[in-house]
Amino acid sequence: MAIRFRVLGAAGSDNALHVEIDSGHAVSRLLFDCGEGCLGALAPSDVLAIDHVFFSHFHMDHVAGFDGFFRMNFAREGNNNRIWGPPGTGKILHHRFRSYLWNLHENLGATWRVSEIGETEVQTWRHELPEAFETAHEEAAMVREGRVILEEEDFIVEAMALDHLTVSMAYKVTEKTRWNIDPERLAALGMRPGAWLKSLKDPVALPDDAMVEGRRAGELRAELLVATPGDSVAYLTDFLLDEAAAAKLVPWLSGCGHVVCESQYRVADVELAQKNYHMTSAQVATLARDAGVKELVLFHVSGRYVAEERAALLEEAREVFPGARFPEGWM
Amino acid sequence: MAIRFRVLGAAGSDNALHVEIDSGHAVSRLLFDCGEGCLGALAPSDVLAIDHVFFSHFHMDHVAGFDGFFRMNFAREGNNNRIWGPPGTGKILHHRFRSYLWNLHENLGATWRVSEIGETEVQTWRHELPEAFETAHEEAAMVREGRVILEEEDFIVEAMALDHLTVSMAYKVTEKTRWNIDPERLAALGMRPGAWLKSLKDPVALPDDAMVEGRRAGELRAELLVATPGDSVAYLTDFLLDEAAAAKLVPWLSGCGHVVCESQYRVADVELAQKNYHMTSAQVATLARDAGVKELVLFHVSGRYVAEERAALLEEAREVFPGARFPEGWM
Repeated sequence: MAIRFRVLGAAGSDNALHVEIDSGHAVSRLLFDCGEGCLGALAPSDVLAIDHVFFSHFHMDHVAGFDGFFRMNFAREGNNNRIWGPPGTGKILHHRFRSYLWNLHENLGATWRVSEIGETEVQTWRHELPEAFETAHEEAAMVREGRVILEEEDFIVEAMALDHLTVSMAYKVTEKTRWNIDPERLAALGMRPGAWLKSLKDPVALPDDAMVEGRRAGELRAELLVATPGDSVAYLTDFLLDEAAAAKLVPWLSGCGHVVCESQYRVADVELAQKNYHMTSAQVATLARDAGVKELVLFHVSGRYVAEERAALLEEAREVFPGARFPEGWM
Repeated sequence: MAIRFRVLGAAGSDNALHVEIDSGHAVSRLLFDCGEGCLGALAPSDVLAIDHVFFSHFHMDHVAGFDGFFRMNFAREGNNNRIWGPPGTGKILHHRFRSYLWNLHENLGATWRVSEIGETEVQTWRHELPEAFETAHEEAAMVREGRVILEEEDFIVEAMALDHLTVSMAYKVTEKTRWNIDPERLAALGMRPGAWLKSLKDPVALPDDAMVEGRRAGELRAELLVATPGDSVAYLTDFLLDEAAAAKLVPWLSGCGHVVCESQYRVADVELAQKNYHMTSAQVATLARDAGVKELVLFHVSGRYVAEERAALLEEAREVFPGARFPEGWM
């Protein structure tokens, strides 16, 4: 199992983040934001395979590439035509769906769902291509359990609202912990492999107090199963990193594998960052250090900086957090 | 005075047409359709200077570059923030305007007008950025005089509805005829230059039966003024070129300077052209020949053809109409 990710778009231009969660038997593909021209970096087959699109917010530099996504996928049938975003997403996407001419659509079957992430629940609307997306059909709201907004077989997605003078949503994708049998412990217990080992990994089918091979399942689990924690990647962009934000983010990002975070400004431009509700290199690096993340990938850097200044911006971050880097191809 | 034009976008990809009407004392800039990525071919200053955008229709390959236009111009103040299109344009653009997040917009003053071209009148709505484009303010409809939809000081724009299983609007830009004084005739009449010559060019300020320099203005006009006809460029895309369309188009395009016309298909793919309400090379060339246009520029060619096939497509057109060519850079 593995998480692969790629920042799309050039330094100083619009960006997006493409994430693949590879469970070994299936790959899920997620897109975070969709700046102008960003999808050109992906093969058409990769664009066609994106399951979910998550928007931080709908300023133009984050949504101007959506037409490129939608023109390839609008008629796609299946369950994973889903778009997520902060409060207001429902209205904005419903307008977007109707901002093209639809004809010859009556016999196409695609359904698209748009989910608006609130503090305590997720509100979803269903839109039908054969209706030319005219009606936003409201579905039952989902109560959020903590920060989780989506739970799939192999991973979960969490969301956190941050302040960009509008809500900018941060996301974190985490692979679920995998449980494997420790063959040495199995041998030490004098037990032999068999189909019962598979059922040991499924606490729903085989409750802890059920008996298996003459012992309680819960005891065997504690002795035989070894946890392999999943990898994780967080996507953070366009918000003011003040004390209140840091107080929420540090515990949430604690131990996160990869944090892909905007760094619009250099340290010297902290006043601009403050004014525009963006971040500086040092602020982002401090967050990464305090949260103890493994790797920090800086992106969404202001177009005001030439290549040397961008390199200096990265150095500013590395002084605070050595595990900082730019996306591949940016240097 | 001159018309300059440039087809934007690559062969087999989305396209658009950029037109500049240079009167000698001012330049007007018009954009026809706005495919994905097309504006990247223009300098930012050229995108900022586009006065009017004319849409043939709103299929995605014609509108997917609009965000790139609008993100640069949405806050622009002035009178020429105007977008035109076929019936349905009002609703579609109103949705598009609301398909972004607007905040911090209250103190910006931009106004955008959207005009929907009907058979007998043009309906216009005004949208205000400080209102986040929430309301489409209906303005008084303009009765169309013939095919004219816009009359400026130096040029007119005409429109013609064609059939793409939805209305696809064709446009023609024509510089107004210029009237100049013939200095030899002036000398032959024994008359001397003066301010009166300027008023002679203005039949509103100086009616034909008014007296000037001891003679009737109308007589002097006939004797002294020499007409220089203006250049013209037509934009035609996405429609079925059947007999009914040809019967309308041939007289309308008669003597037109430059016709920029789609040629989606080769002659052998005429059934596809028919089915998809598009055109073949030979059909387009026949239209150009029958209308006696000066030059035919083929564009919006299907992505199914490799370079050699595109070259063959052009040859098919040239067999019928030798004045056919592709846009610069396509061969």
